[in-house]
Amino acid sequence: MFLNLKRTVEELKELRSLTGDEDGAQRVAFTPIWAKAREWLKFKMQELPVETEMDAAGNLWFTLRGDSESSLLIGGHIDSVPNGGWLDGCLNLMAGVETMRRIHAQYEGKPPVTVKLVDWADEEGARFGKSLFGSSAFSGNLDMDEARALVDANGIHLPEAVAKYGIDFEYVKNSGKFAQHADAYLELHIEQGPVLLDMELPLGAVLGTFGVERHAIVFRGQAAHSGSTPMNRRKDAFLAAAKMAPEIYQITDRHGGVCTIGSCTTKPGIVTSVVAECRLTLDQRHLDADSLAAMLAEAKSASERFAAEGGVTVEWERLWQIEPVIFDETLVNFCDTAIQETCGVSHRLPSGPLHDAAEVARAGIPTVMMFVQSLHGISHNKIEDTREDHLELCVKAFDALAEKTIHWMVENRKVK
Amino acid sequence: MFLNLKRTVEELKELRSLTGDEDGAQRVAFTPIWAKAREWLKFKMQELPVETEMDAAGNLWFTLRGDSESSLLIGGHIDSVPNGGWLDGCLNLMAGVETMRRIHAQYEGKPPVTVKLVDWADEEGARFGKSLFGSSAFSGNLDMDEARALVDANGIHLPEAVAKYGIDFEYVKNSGKFAQHADAYLELHIEQGPVLLDMELPLGAVLGTFGVERHAIVFRGQAAHSGSTPMNRRKDAFLAAAKMAPEIYQITDRHGGVCTIGSCTTKPGIVTSVVAECRLTLDQRHLDADSLAAMLAEAKSASERFAAEGGVTVEWERLWQIEPVIFDETLVNFCDTAIQETCGVSHRLPSGPLHDAAEVARAGIPTVMMFVQSLHGISHNKIEDTREDHLELCVKAFDALAEKTIHWMVENRKVK
Repeated sequence: MFLNLKRTVEELKELRSLTGDEDGAQRVAFTPIWAKAREWLKFKMQELPVETEMDAAGNLWFTLRGDSESSLLIGGHIDSVPNGGWLDGCLNLMAGVETMRRIHAQYEGKPPVTVKLVDWADEEGARFGKSLFGSSAFSGNLDMDEARALVDANGIHLPEAVAKYGIDFEYVKNSGKFAQHADAYLELHIEQGPVLLDMELPLGAVLGTFGVERHAIVFRGQAAHSGSTPMNRRKDAFLAAAKMAPEIYQITDRHGGVCTIGSCTTKPGIVTSVVAECRLTLDQRHLDADSLAAMLAEAKSASERFAAEGGVTVEWERLWQIEPVIFDETLVNFCDTAIQETCGVSHRLPSGPLHDAAEVARAGIPTVMMFVQSLHGISHNKIEDTREDHLELCVKAFDALAEKTIHWMVENRKVK
Repeated sequence: MFLNLKRTVEELKELRSLTGDEDGAQRVAFTPIWAKAREWLKFKMQELPVETEMDAAGNLWFTLRGDSESSLLIGGHIDSVPNGGWLDGCLNLMAGVETMRRIHAQYEGKPPVTVKLVDWADEEGARFGKSLFGSSAFSGNLDMDEARALVDANGIHLPEAVAKYGIDFEYVKNSGKFAQHADAYLELHIEQGPVLLDMELPLGAVLGTFGVERHAIVFRGQAAHSGSTPMNRRKDAFLAAAKMAPEIYQITDRHGGVCTIGSCTTKPGIVTSVVAECRLTLDQRHLDADSLAAMLAEAKSASERFAAEGGVTVEWERLWQIEPVIFDETLVNFCDTAIQETCGVSHRLPSGPLHDAAEVARAGIPTVMMFVQSLHGISHNKIEDTREDHLELCVKAFDALAEKTIHWMVENRKVK
């Protein structure tokens, strides 16, 4: 047995004490603590004969050369949100480190394929409000104009901030050359939701990441005095908007997926006036593009019905959208099998949050993710946690997935 | 015929051109334009043999002595909100001026009772956010500690602002001595709502002013990621709060009165999180104290039901309350009769907004108000308007009400 499961847990604790405080992890990308975490990761990798290099987007690559140029990628992110959890992102990397150690040892320094561990730059987007910076530069999907204009809380622009870490913003998409010979991508992650917790399962195979439709919905009625305006004369923008709240639960009852009204603002917003204008934000997510489109259409139609009932108008503005990303069927099966072999039982589930894996899949590289149960079903919080036996199980199952994938890559080469 | 109905309309237009601009009336209390408007009113009253004096609260009194000390009070307010309407408050005064002219002429300078016209100080509360300053000082209901602490947008305290107009704040309640011998109070006002407009009636007799219960309602659930949290795991504070919107319409269906959710705020209020905290303001009004209490109890009980349904908590905080004020039954009957005699048809209705008349009634003086139809059903806005024929009708009917009241006062004296 080349795998040391307890070592991963120890290393995660070591990273926590090095880069966290009583409020949680503090490895915000493009800050000194983040750089310190990366130095620690490089130090850990020194024991292996890997080539270490940072790409044009600031992604950090560790390459273990094999018999073939065909490459297995394993990814994660060492950056965190401020006051973040101790596992989100770095669990992925440290499981990858352990898997590389096992591959190096088992194949006596000469694995059949090349294996690359990548630490994506700024997955969280905590400082500039835009996630998946490094992986979307890699996939080519980064919106350069949008990213160029991003400013942090201190008024520093993203290009200026990344320059301090040796990145020339205008060339970040050169990162894409690392996609060459990449034939599979694997990523382990803490679930960040309660699905596995509710099912009392340690691990799950991820089917893909939800597509997202994000809109602002503005209802416009008429301000009127709260004392002198009879109820049947009101054009109450809040009444129409409020009806959307139970409606989105009915929409997800019909279609699955999730819908969230995250924000509600009212104008004039004073105690003595009927609401003239009410703005909601609606975030809708589904793994199936058609279902997502249906959810959006039904929400729009409901909003128009509520507006008409209340004599108000409604207007939709798209804030953001992304297509669902479906992971590779073969790799999902491998992942499912590896989990069953390790735990005796598995479950396939979609990912609600986005992950770097979605960007890699969009770049055309066969991709799968594995989830490990999240205690409290919570992430982006210092109370984020996973049982230690589950951490050990996930490293074991993830390593098994990597091995199955290497065999498949070798078989594929032979067929070609 | 001693009454000149067209004169009142002309004088209102004269005041408008003197103290308004393209955005509406600008007679905010305790400002130079307000003082200018008062000088104009004093000038208008010079033709009558009245005593003119300002009381301790800045209310301006014009006294026409009669055979008896028993006094008929007629009130209004020359102050306006910024960008206000041309009739709100000053119509009351100018109709009163015309009525005093008629009384003086008809009784050849010796009316059977004393008649006093009062211009209440700062009815609107536009500068300091607290209405009915002068009339609540008169009635003794002014909360001195609260008023002492009021600050305008420039950081000036109310006591400092009123001192510039000759008022010593600490003595404003001495204004109450003007209640001596006051045996009736009459006030004409533009409706500020659409009831008479909808019924196509020019005038209405006002039954009283609504009692008000004003609360903040805070629902508390749990923030959770919009992508990773299944719908059945959410503790969505907005969902529970939103259910209150249709509920308050059902409450008024059962009880009458009016309910308004004027403001809704959400925390964290971001597109990617379930709402952890949602705060509503609820303003409830009814002419009947028991009905108002029932409306409040039903809203509380509904909020607790919605909270329980959604696994969230709810807390109520009272922001303000005032009891309903019922006007004098005899005077309401006089008002109704005067309107019927003038227009052929009348209607009795409650007042949603508060008025100085409510404070006078609370001081124990028999009180009634007359409403004239408001075009667009709107007030506190430069588009506030009333048809000129309705303006003439309201002066005529109001004067008839004054005459009926004088006769009643004389009869009462005889009985005593």
